[in-house]
Amino acid sequence: MTGLSPSRPATAVLLAAGLGTRMKSSRPKAMQPIAGQPMLAHLLANAAEVFDRLVVVVGPDMEDVAQLAAPFPVVVQTERLGTAHAALQAEDWFGEGDVAVLYADNPLISAQTMARLLEERRQPDVGLALLAMRPANPGRYGRVMTEDGAVTRIVEWADATPEERTIDLCNAGVLCADAGHFRRWLHAVGNDNAKGEFYLTDVVDLAVAENAHVRAVEAAEEELRGVNSRAELAQAEAALQQRLRAKALDGGATLVAPETVFLSTDTVLAPDVVVEPHVIFGPGVTVHEGASIRAFSHLEGCDVLPGAIIGPYARLRPGTVVGPDARVGNFVELKNATLGDGTKVNHLSYVGDADVGAQTNIGAGTIVCNYDGTFKYHTDIGSNVFIGSDSVLVSPLTIGDNALVAAGSTITSDVPADALAFGRARQQNRDGYGKRFKDARRAKKENS
Amino acid sequence: MTGLSPSRPATAVLLAAGLGTRMKSSRPKAMQPIAGQPMLAHLLANAAEVFDRLVVVVGPDMEDVAQLAAPFPVVVQTERLGTAHAALQAEDWFGEGDVAVLYADNPLISAQTMARLLEERRQPDVGLALLAMRPANPGRYGRVMTEDGAVTRIVEWADATPEERTIDLCNAGVLCADAGHFRRWLHAVGNDNAKGEFYLTDVVDLAVAENAHVRAVEAAEEELRGVNSRAELAQAEAALQQRLRAKALDGGATLVAPETVFLSTDTVLAPDVVVEPHVIFGPGVTVHEGASIRAFSHLEGCDVLPGAIIGPYARLRPGTVVGPDARVGNFVELKNATLGDGTKVNHLSYVGDADVGAQTNIGAGTIVCNYDGTFKYHTDIGSNVFIGSDSVLVSPLTIGDNALVAAGSTITSDVPADALAFGRARQQNRDGYGKRFKDARRAKKENS
Amino acid sequence: MTGLSPSRPATAVLLAAGLGTRMKSSRPKAMQPIAGQPMLAHLLANAAEVFDRLVVVVGPDMEDVAQLAAPFPVVVQTERLGTAHAALQAEDWFGEGDVAVLYADNPLISAQTMARLLEERRQPDVGLALLAMRPANPGRYGRVMTEDGAVTRIVEWADATPEERTIDLCNAGVLCADAGHFRRWLHAVGNDNAKGEFYLTDVVDLAVAENAHVRAVEAAEEELRGVNSRAELAQAEAALQQRLRAKALDGGATLVAPETVFLSTDTVLAPDVVVEPHVIFGPGVTVHEGASIRAFSHLEGCDVLPGAIIGPYARLRPGTVVGPDARVGNFVELKNATLGDGTKVNHLSYVGDADVGAQTNIGAGTIVCNYDGTFKYHTDIGSNVFIGSDSVLVSPLTIGDNALVAAGSTITSDVPADALAFGRARQQNRDGYGKRFKDARRAKKENS
Repeated sequence: MTGLSPSRPATAVLLAAGLGTRMKSSRPKAMQPIAGQPMLAHLLANAAEVFDRLVVVVGPDMEDVAQLAAPFPVVVQTERLGTAHAALQAEDWFGEGDVAVLYADNPLISAQTMARLLEERRQPDVGLALLAMRPANPGRYGRVMTEDGAVTRIVEWADATPEERTIDLCNAGVLCADAGHFRRWLHAVGNDNAKGEFYLTDVVDLAVAENAHVRAVEAAEEELRGVNSRAELAQAEAALQQRLRAKALDGGATLVAPETVFLSTDTVLAPDVVVEPHVIFGPGVTVHEGASIRAFSHLEGCDVLPGAIIGPYARLRPGTVVGPDARVGNFVELKNATLGDGTKVNHLSYVGDADVGAQTNIGAGTIVCNYDGTFKYHTDIGSNVFIGSDSVLVSPLTIGDNALVAAGSTITSDVPADALAFGRARQQNRDGYGKRFKDARRAKKENS
Repeated sequence: MTGLSPSRPATAVLLAAGLGTRMKSSRPKAMQPIAGQPMLAHLLANAAEVFDRLVVVVGPDMEDVAQLAAPFPVVVQTERLGTAHAALQAEDWFGEGDVAVLYADNPLISAQTMARLLEERRQPDVGLALLAMRPANPGRYGRVMTEDGAVTRIVEWADATPEERTIDLCNAGVLCADAGHFRRWLHAVGNDNAKGEFYLTDVVDLAVAENAHVRAVEAAEEELRGVNSRAELAQAEAALQQRLRAKALDGGATLVAPETVFLSTDTVLAPDVVVEPHVIFGPGVTVHEGASIRAFSHLEGCDVLPGAIIGPYARLRPGTVVGPDARVGNFVELKNATLGDGTKVNHLSYVGDADVGAQTNIGAGTIVCNYDGTFKYHTDIGSNVFIGSDSVLVSPLTIGDNALVAAGSTITSDVPADALAFGRARQQNRDGYGKRFKDARRAKKENS
Repeated sequence: MTGLSPSRPATAVLLAAGLGTRMKSSRPKAMQPIAGQPMLAHLLANAAEVFDRLVVVVGPDMEDVAQLAAPFPVVVQTERLGTAHAALQAEDWFGEGDVAVLYADNPLISAQTMARLLEERRQPDVGLALLAMRPANPGRYGRVMTEDGAVTRIVEWADATPEERTIDLCNAGVLCADAGHFRRWLHAVGNDNAKGEFYLTDVVDLAVAENAHVRAVEAAEEELRGVNSRAELAQAEAALQQRLRAKALDGGATLVAPETVFLSTDTVLAPDVVVEPHVIFGPGVTVHEGASIRAFSHLEGCDVLPGAIIGPYARLRPGTVVGPDARVGNFVELKNATLGDGTKVNHLSYVGDADVGAQTNIGAGTIVCNYDGTFKYHTDIGSNVFIGSDSVLVSPLTIGDNALVAAGSTITSDVPADALAFGRARQQNRDGYGKRFKDARRAKKENS
């Protein structure tokens, strides 16, 4: 709730029954992701900040949508008879107070804009509030006709006169009204049109006909644009990324090349964090003050503590915590791993399901072998440990503080603190055999 | 042939004799690549869809261009005397029917536009058809003067009056006429100008002088823009990528950030394929329905079957087939390798010249050693095999179904089905030696 | 000095006392980097080309700024009393000749523009020269009023009439005058304004009041835009990158997708170098003719010789020299390493502190273990050597010409020329044990 009177409840009806036909997708449109989350998830998150109750209208056989919507109530629109018909399926959940209808394929409407819509509706004289925009290219959007600040009509593009088409205030389709009125208007909507569908937009005419005062709340095109094709999905992603990048910059992070950095809605970048070009933040990432994320890094579900340096080419997977001033270098993957203060995993390593102490050095090419094909196991590595290059650590395993593992070792059992462990064969040289082997191979090649 | 009457043959003359001078290149201009293919290759591919015969005009010592043009006939322009002179070198190949002159440094003209040019020329009353555009910034392009829809003149920018310069219809230089007329006009072109060159554009005046009806066919600037510098090469690449990305989106693929994805002209992305940011598709890639290509991946010459997940940071090289629901993870390179259903190569591995069965797990850090410095060898790995982490598989090698290779092993000979193979030394711990080694090193450092 | 008379000395005063408040940074603003270098470093480099003397004004406790400015003289502005006050701190360094005042948060002013400012000032009749621009969006910049080509006044936006605000010539704040006049005017500036600060801009009024002829030198907005926020820092980075990319293209390099390539000011790309998308050049990189830098590569402090191919996913770190026609492949890191002619390090390797001869092949997964936790050691590898896959080379080490290291070996002592070295355990197979192990694990899982 963003400062609205709690005395009058507000319900949001989220229409999510659309198929992915124009996207050539087998998934419902509401499930198409932006910033790694289904479009509906963005709408649910923002609407939940403003409305007391949410109800989601899904199509038949859309279990994934229903699952995403849980624990909010879900109703099924079994026949596709238009947006007014879809909204009516949720009628039992309208309750008292105000009702707004939103769309899963309009995923970028901010909570602020939703709150403005609701506030406008709650002005004493306002019967119906709707969202409108002035797009750079109004194209075939329905135009919003106004007189003295009141909406008098929505003219669909196909029905508009050339003069009406010059109007640039366009209908975004989002309406908000008192539950009782809304219900009555929805029932009154007819389907006497080319497609035989019940259109939500007709509610505006019905409201005007009853002399209800209808008001348009303007918002930015970026928030209100619909997503019907893969191209529009990419545009919505771009608009959302731009918003997230601006927020990160405002918060005091340096993004060297913001246009090459991809963020999640929950990414937290502290002041003086530096993010180099070409970095991807999946969900659940927090980067603390003064840490650096170098180029070509990929982070999900992890915490990077102050002063740590990640990358280039580092991949941090969920469950990872990189300690203060620790260092994760190139071609390194960490999964469900914690690194202590100043610990280094600098090159070509995989560390999974492991806790590593402070000031430990994991050499280049180290593999923590945490999986036997059936089970996953845990590894504990102490502080001030030195793991020589190209070692395999076969979990479960405990390596004590100050231990040293010789390069090239396969470690299958625990290493006590202070011990030296090795598990590798002794080197042998055979004079002249190298050249002989090569000469033989070359001769074979020449003869073949 | 795109619906054109096959009764009248059509010949395209492709001018490819230009040097890379302004590009500061030692390669002929026609060989500069966009989307990974020489500019001339794009033109050849599109022209071959529309014209019955192609003939390529190259400069002296341009064997690479000639080789690319094969099996189409190639003629050499030994002296650089202008575009009309270049076109005339191909005179012997004009044959009957229509002739169009195209440019290797105009590589983005679509087959559709070529077909429109040819159709226009074949209108009963049309003697000469040319391509024109209305660029955002007409700059120093020659202007196309028209009267009642007929072209009356091309005015070079240098000769144009201020009023003429306000005309935004610009000449793209591409002409199409009946072979006999074209030949006659080309012979009539003079070189009485500052540079003493024979210009193809003069054909327009000659045609008009004979009262031939000259028509301009308009096309988008993006198609017709010439490429003379590295900056223009980059612009052409950008324009082509935009076209390829739009096609991929229309086809039902999600490109999260289309501007960071680079495609080849033959890239096939099925519906519901998801491509994350920062992905590169070299030639010969097909990605099947529902497969995902994660960030920072690089694919060439490979097939990714339904439901497979590639990357992040996966490199698939030519000859690779990733089976249904298989998984190729980070810092993994596959070359000439096939993976069966559900098989996983998740971390830091190289698999080359190998066939891997279904449901097999290739552990982190596995290297298939397919090269002995002279020869390459093949490896067969069965189904339900588990290759422990950090193993080396020295080819040639056959590993049977259900086999297990212990982590850290060097495998040099075949492993029968169901067997366990290991090739690693036993671990030994020496108590206290780790700390002792470190203390000694540190002491040495302090004393140094 | 760019062609200016050396007879009259010129001094640049660089104001670098600004805090990073609006950037939410604990670092002084002058230290915020673009193209990997602090803003002040760019200004110092360009000013040093034009001016005889530089002096830097820093704030208290800005040792890092002072250190960067060395060996140029540094003065400390202990109180923040405005730009005129800051400039006056450097008064002792004005000397004879001309003085210009520049800003660390205006880092993109080119040496050419500085020289034009100085030349303008040195016109016989000119008393004060200033830099001005015509921004696309003039916003709240101060407007430059002129009459007959002479500046009559700077009107701050807050004080400007609506008519004055329509003027698009804006003040960039950079001034240049004779040292004696400048000193006098600076002392005369008052602080009778809302903030009680001494503003450098007031010098213009003082000069006009003395009937000095004041002239505006126009430069591009991209050069003159100030950097006060992280968003503006990103814009400055983008503007600088665009400049560097254009220079690289002009020089004859192909950048397939310039917008995805990040350069340093000292990056040298020879003609016919090809740079694929998503590449980063840190400081100190030279790429020679015909070399290719493939996608996702990251280079710093290295030389890439003609015909070498780097990447994709290659990281070259400082001190690396890649020989002619050598090949560095995917997931490979080189640090302080030299590779001879035609040598290959193609896959998943780390080579640090090593010299490698010609025609040598370093197999996939090779790790040079150059660090024992305390010291770093050097490795020498000869020519025509073959290092088998997944080997560890424990430094210090010398491997002679034509030597061969068997795959999977740990090499701890020198290998003579022509020798074969191996250090790995012999493989053993145990029939049926693989399947038995798996069955047992699965049974355990089912029972758990």
